[in-house]
Amino acid sequence: METDLPKFDSAFSIDFVIFGFEAGELKVLLIERNQEPFNDWWALPGNLVENNESLDDAATRILFELTGFRDMHMEQFHTFGSVNRHPLGRVITVAYYALIRIIGQKEIRPVTQYAKKVSWHAINELPKLAFDHDEIFESSIQKLRRRLGYQPIAFELLPEKFTLTQLQLLYEAILNKKLDKRNFRKKMLSYGFLKELDEKQKGVSYRAAKLYKFDRRKYFKIFQNDLNLES
Amino acid sequence: METDLPKFDSAFSIDFVIFGFEAGELKVLLIERNQEPFNDWWALPGNLVENNESLDDAATRILFELTGFRDMHMEQFHTFGSVNRHPLGRVITVAYYALIRIIGQKEIRPVTQYAKKVSWHAINELPKLAFDHDEIFESSIQKLRRRLGYQPIAFELLPEKFTLTQLQLLYEAILNKKLDKRNFRKKMLSYGFLKELDEKQKGVSYRAAKLYKFDRRKYFKIFQNDLNLES
Repeated sequence: METDLPKFDSAFSIDFVIFGFEAGELKVLLIERNQEPFNDWWALPGNLVENNESLDDAATRILFELTGFRDMHMEQFHTFGSVNRHPLGRVITVAYYALIRIIGQKEIRPVTQYAKKVSWHAINELPKLAFDHDEIFESSIQKLRRRLGYQPIAFELLPEKFTLTQLQLLYEAILNKKLDKRNFRKKMLSYGFLKELDEKQKGVSYRAAKLYKFDRRKYFKIFQNDLNLES
Repeated sequence: METDLPKFDSAFSIDFVIFGFEAGELKVLLIERNQEPFNDWWALPGNLVENNESLDDAATRILFELTGFRDMHMEQFHTFGSVNRHPLGRVITVAYYALIRIIGQKEIRPVTQYAKKVSWHAINELPKLAFDHDEIFESSIQKLRRRLGYQPIAFELLPEKFTLTQLQLLYEAILNKKLDKRNFRKKMLSYGFLKELDEKQKGVSYRAAKLYKFDRRKYFKIFQNDLNLES
């Protein structure tokens, strides 16, 4: 460790786990660091919170600086505070996650010089990450898995119109296991929140599949308001 | 503000929202502070995290010091970081919530001198709280309300054997609205996770009602694993 680095008695940072889905794979956005500690390592996008900014303001600023994204829907999911998680001193980090549609996004570039590169990585092929970011990532994917059961997470990641194969690949990626095709389709269609379109995939070399849309209103009617008796 | 108080450049604390249910009312555990700032005010139990302890260790210590509780199931739900939330400097706070059965708990006493008193307060009759604790409390009750739809929250707060009236009062307290008795019973019994016991309330002056138990295994079978296709 270099000795001219600043030391923190107590500081706080924000880190982002940004999920996207592309070409049948669940991906996460990583930066390549360009400073110590962990120079040259891959890490979750994140940085220290300034003294004069709220957590939410800091989240907006840091996300923009590292990825160029603005106004993304983000949600805090956990704050990590092991004593030795940061080599320069005591730093706790507030972790946020976000789900975005990769399709239609232009190339992502860091706006500031805090990162060399920023790019999508398939979650099954992640490099070893800086700090405790492996643990933060693992915690976020657990959260995603649990929320898949009661929040319309899949439909935030898919394009507006999608095939049942795409939907199944996404579920398999999040749950990290193969699902039976016939059962999956039967179950998904039985809920009534998938709307079959009078349209098929375009520009594919194999037999074009039917496209579907997600009916958010029906989804919430079925799942969200059941046990809490709001309906 | 007195000038001999310590100032924080950046520090972090933990605050607890501890819910209990007693005599048909949803309650929260508050302490009466015995030091500046907010001397004599009611507040959520909480304190600063020491430099050499992890968040989880600090949570365990602080909870014990202020309430005498050990080994309670707690869950982080949000970290609050407005710039001016603490009059002595920059302090962000990690908020945890817990659900406990009040019945059978002995009287609660602060173990240390950080609080004058600790006592249960009905959530509809809360005093104005110190710091941003009104906001933290409000955020916790919103969270509780949402989770009621997909987690067995009610059954963590009720005694092991309960009547349908107790269950309805608890739902009404969390949702902050009256529910129709006939519809509530019909819906709750239709799920199949309430087990009717061959036993009635004891020691009541009115007609004794039937007692029920919660079947956790059935609950999870029905609600948790539906959309995520684990079943």
